[in-house]
Amino acid sequence: MMPAEALTSFVAVLEWFSVAVFAVTGALVASRKQMDIVGFALLGTVTGIGGGTVRDVLLGRLPVFWVFEPAYVVVCVLVSALIFFTAHIMHSRFRVLLWFDALGLALVAVIGAERGLASGAGPIVAILMGVITGVAGGIIRDILGGESPLILRREIYITAAFATAALFIGLLAAGVPRDAALLSSVAFGFVTRGLAIHYGWSLPAYRSRPGRTAGE
Amino acid sequence: MMPAEALTSFVAVLEWFSVAVFAVTGALVASRKQMDIVGFALLGTVTGIGGGTVRDVLLGRLPVFWVFEPAYVVVCVLVSALIFFTAHIMHSRFRVLLWFDALGLALVAVIGAERGLASGAGPIVAILMGVITGVAGGIIRDILGGESPLILRREIYITAAFATAALFIGLLAAGVPRDAALLSSVAFGFVTRGLAIHYGWSLPAYRSRPGRTAGE
Amino acid sequence: MMPAEALTSFVAVLEWFSVAVFAVTGALVASRKQMDIVGFALLGTVTGIGGGTVRDVLLGRLPVFWVFEPAYVVVCVLVSALIFFTAHIMHSRFRVLLWFDALGLALVAVIGAERGLASGAGPIVAILMGVITGVAGGIIRDILGGESPLILRREIYITAAFATAALFIGLLAAGVPRDAALLSSVAFGFVTRGLAIHYGWSLPAYRSRPGRTAGE
Repeated sequence: MMPAEALTSFVAVLEWFSVAVFAVTGALVASRKQMDIVGFALLGTVTGIGGGTVRDVLLGRLPVFWVFEPAYVVVCVLVSALIFFTAHIMHSRFRVLLWFDALGLALVAVIGAERGLASGAGPIVAILMGVITGVAGGIIRDILGGESPLILRREIYITAAFATAALFIGLLAAGVPRDAALLSSVAFGFVTRGLAIHYGWSLPAYRSRPGRTAGE
Repeated sequence: MMPAEALTSFVAVLEWFSVAVFAVTGALVASRKQMDIVGFALLGTVTGIGGGTVRDVLLGRLPVFWVFEPAYVVVCVLVSALIFFTAHIMHSRFRVLLWFDALGLALVAVIGAERGLASGAGPIVAILMGVITGVAGGIIRDILGGESPLILRREIYITAAFATAALFIGLLAAGVPRDAALLSSVAFGFVTRGLAIHYGWSLPAYRSRPGRTAGE
Repeated sequence: MMPAEALTSFVAVLEWFSVAVFAVTGALVASRKQMDIVGFALLGTVTGIGGGTVRDVLLGRLPVFWVFEPAYVVVCVLVSALIFFTAHIMHSRFRVLLWFDALGLALVAVIGAERGLASGAGPIVAILMGVITGVAGGIIRDILGGESPLILRREIYITAAFATAALFIGLLAAGVPRDAALLSSVAFGFVTRGLAIHYGWSLPAYRSRPGRTAGE
């Protein structure tokens, strides 16, 4: 186990990394829609900081986190501008990006859940805050970008955020120290989402059963 | 008239009932889109608690109501999971559901208006809060589910929420006791929406008048 | 330069004017979708007050501005109702409306940026608040109205809001008195957007470069 300070720095670095990776996914949607550079910046920024913003609003942690830490916005804008000029390279690296996104998702799900606890919420709402932090930015990105929203897709994505946040809260409840709980649930979330990417995992979808309905 | 305590319990029961009915309508959209169970849970939950959440954010009643009452979230998730396995039955009961939804709409429109007054808002904003509580969840549901949003449809739905909240605020202003105002405006809203369902009532829609434009 | 009081009144009048103009654009989308009068009122109101509402929520200025100033809502509803009966006239005046909208955009971008500073935000976030106040209402309007969102279009619109807010913050930072900074940045924003309307200005859009990708 790393000493606590090193872990804190490591988590801080990963959090910046998550925001940047999410911003890249936003800018890539902008490239698919052939937007101009302002569209890239807006879609990248909304995706990068959207999840944490929705979480902060619901918890009443206002102003939202980036109002007094504008560097988050700056990172999103710079990353989006970079993608505007290099998206053709990123597209050919798309599978690499998916793996970075998996790491970002696992991390912000844990961070979001922890912020929920810190605001006095119970375990269920804390898990929900982890899920919201992980996926709300992507949902807003898809709505603004005119794409089919995240939750319509059958891939294991929201499920991975949920499992990661739930494991973290569960480990804390079981008395596992915070740092160990954080590292193991991020690792778990990353592997889960990674396996889903690699094997194309999805949960069974609802299908209408005309036979049974007819028989009623 | 019921004694005050019985009415309070009755309203509380109806409020839970409204959240559950709205969650069912969210889960049914998930079934139409053939989502997995996590999609059902997310869409059901967002629809069940979305209207009250938007209201609380606008009024600054933060954290929003379900952060310290996670049972609302739990009810939405359980209801959504139930629908995942039984949606084929629900579809054949669709008209029954519409009537439950009419009752839920009337009730939350009144509750939303009352919360607005309690936050110090005047009558106009209180009525607006009633409308928002009644319809915002359904609007978010339709956007996330990729359906044509509620406000594009010509059916009397938002109008029923508005009329219900306005009647409640008007009765209070006229000096009618709160419990009588609540019961009569819920009854009025339920009947109005019910008649709209039964007779397919709609308001006249705007139609472009090419003749007159040409003559200008 | 006008005396300070006259300018304050002038800005207040222009702010009401901006809300009303934005409400007209919302109601015109409702007319294209052939909604009923309630749909007009909702879409007009959301567009008129949406940008300032999102800004207030992010900054934690709650309840949002119109809760204790319901006249903003009333103006939006009245304007929307007026458009319901006269949209055929407005459509033939569409280019005039675009110019009013340009003035409204420039003004609320400056007002939004100033509210950001007043809430303690630094210059970057203040500029962002100007952009959000200017464009968020239109984005919500497009999503609710089922139109292609504002940020997908290549026209200079968000860019004009950004340039206006940035100029205002820059002038203040350079020591220009507030009133002079306000008037000159509103004038600049109006002219910029006006030129974009007149000449159909747009920023270069991202285009995929298949040749280079192939060569990688």
